[in-house]
Amino acid sequence: MSLLRYDATTNDWVIFAPERARRPHERAVRSEVDRSAQAAIGRCPFCPGNEHLTGPEIFAVRNTEASTGWQTRVVANKFPVLRIEEDHRRREEGTLYRVMGGCGAHEVVIESPDHDRPLAHQPVEQVEAVLRTLQVRFNDLLRDARFQTIIPFKNHGEGAGTSLHHPHWQLIATPVVPRLLRLKQAVATDYFDQTGKCLYCVLLADELAFGERVVAQNDHFAAVIPYAAHAPFETWILPKAHQASFGWMPAERLRPLAEILKTVLLKLYNGLDDPAFNLTVNTVPRGDEDKAYFLWHIEILPRLTRTAGFELGSGMSINTVLPEDAARSLRDVEVT
Amino acid sequence: MSLLRYDATTNDWVIFAPERARRPHERAVRSEVDRSAQAAIGRCPFCPGNEHLTGPEIFAVRNTEASTGWQTRVVANKFPVLRIEEDHRRREEGTLYRVMGGCGAHEVVIESPDHDRPLAHQPVEQVEAVLRTLQVRFNDLLRDARFQTIIPFKNHGEGAGTSLHHPHWQLIATPVVPRLLRLKQAVATDYFDQTGKCLYCVLLADELAFGERVVAQNDHFAAVIPYAAHAPFETWILPKAHQASFGWMPAERLRPLAEILKTVLLKLYNGLDDPAFNLTVNTVPRGDEDKAYFLWHIEILPRLTRTAGFELGSGMSINTVLPEDAARSLRDVEVT
Repeated sequence: MSLLRYDATTNDWVIFAPERARRPHERAVRSEVDRSAQAAIGRCPFCPGNEHLTGPEIFAVRNTEASTGWQTRVVANKFPVLRIEEDHRRREEGTLYRVMGGCGAHEVVIESPDHDRPLAHQPVEQVEAVLRTLQVRFNDLLRDARFQTIIPFKNHGEGAGTSLHHPHWQLIATPVVPRLLRLKQAVATDYFDQTGKCLYCVLLADELAFGERVVAQNDHFAAVIPYAAHAPFETWILPKAHQASFGWMPAERLRPLAEILKTVLLKLYNGLDDPAFNLTVNTVPRGDEDKAYFLWHIEILPRLTRTAGFELGSGMSINTVLPEDAARSLRDVEVT
Repeated sequence: MSLLRYDATTNDWVIFAPERARRPHERAVRSEVDRSAQAAIGRCPFCPGNEHLTGPEIFAVRNTEASTGWQTRVVANKFPVLRIEEDHRRREEGTLYRVMGGCGAHEVVIESPDHDRPLAHQPVEQVEAVLRTLQVRFNDLLRDARFQTIIPFKNHGEGAGTSLHHPHWQLIATPVVPRLLRLKQAVATDYFDQTGKCLYCVLLADELAFGERVVAQNDHFAAVIPYAAHAPFETWILPKAHQASFGWMPAERLRPLAEILKTVLLKLYNGLDDPAFNLTVNTVPRGDEDKAYFLWHIEILPRLTRTAGFELGSGMSINTVLPEDAARSLRDVEVT
């Protein structure tokens, strides 16, 4: 059972997910799935044949009617940080403090039956199936009116915090809009109020005109390393036509998105020797799907450096690689 | 040569410090000091006898007039992320972008001549000398009117991003107020405007009255795990009397601060098996030293978990240990 507490010094909610009844310092290591069960059986719960080891199946893409196998598979996270059964109403504790139940959802999207093949090396059809699966789950979760944002993300590699090798994504639905998204929303709304334009569309147009920070592009998407990237090789993939929500992306854009995502992941894989990375889908909170201020996009953060005291204490990032240098180096990476 | 670029999507400055003329992906690993020089010579630049390996000495505490040795020593960081020679004036680049020179300062405080003894195991007199050294440098750096905030911090252990084993602190002076500090300032100012009280003094009074999240205290300071701690065993040390700036702490408080800091670090060391941690001093930006809205304090963040895609994408923290459980477990740790 988890809960959310309000940080009165940063106007922010923190999720508390004390999962097991062990001693506190042992609980400090978080697990995405039941690793003890996995270790006991010696089998991967995400591999075909071990479907009974996961939480209940929520959704799957299956190849053909004749086939009994699945192409992608969505299951409930066995140790969710948030879940639908919890109470999302706020309660006050004393004068400063507020708490609410850990209401939300936490799903795992198993990318493919392949235990060892990273997304960069999947056929583009499989990448497309993963993106379609994510969009289906994203839109379905939004039907629960208590959820304010749905965050699809992927952790690749131990350095990026993943504990399970079999490639997968996750979706977390939150009962509040997280602070960072509120900040981006406020900044972009302010820009829109001043100029009548979408900040991210202007940013993308500027990057395409300048060219030196562009990593790859096709007719519908562009991959750029932003002017003020917060970490080395941080790469964004943005649609070329305005669209506020990932959930509203037309079905015919899934293929070109799969193509550019595969290209970028391959360039990172080949150019940086399979780095650990975190990938998140940035999109508007519930109800802003038709708004003009925001452009949904993917952010990929390779974990090449470690944040230390200065960054944690100030919130200010130190980036050791200029975006122009990083983009040039990724443009030069062969991906055939 | 470093520079700062403005992130128009988060209203935030990012420091770019491309240090060496290597290929970009090799530059991604940041070093605090010249590790190649260190490796070549096989000696620690922070150890007595190797003083010529560091940048110029800025300050030192020496034991007695008779002694030639030093107790603490402050040197310029050999590969500073910011430095005083750079131009702090903003320039516009196109419609969205702004840049400024990497103006600031970056100093290293060598804790003691001991290569292997962590701060927790230093005599309290030595901890006091370190804190006095930090305060002297903090106040001296503030004399440069271009610097908006001075951030003293310490990284302990590889998992906390340190690259040099010999115990040390750092101070970074920034030409802008970092976003996270602006946020805390805004939240606390708003609270003060509403209530006429310092948010952190109220928070501390509540914690002392409740008691269950208190780790340790003496007459002048208390160590607590805050109600909405963002990470397991995150511990704050706060003065019991209102004081907005670390620089203005009276000299007679250095000893009780050293005592509680040593106690907390020992409890973490013994209770969590010498965890990597980041420690930062939170204090007001330039000019707010006499203000009533903020209470300076130390934040210690053990690095027990790894932030992953959800936290990075949303800014929302997931904490796997309830503050009451963490505080109880640290209270029980013997530190004799």
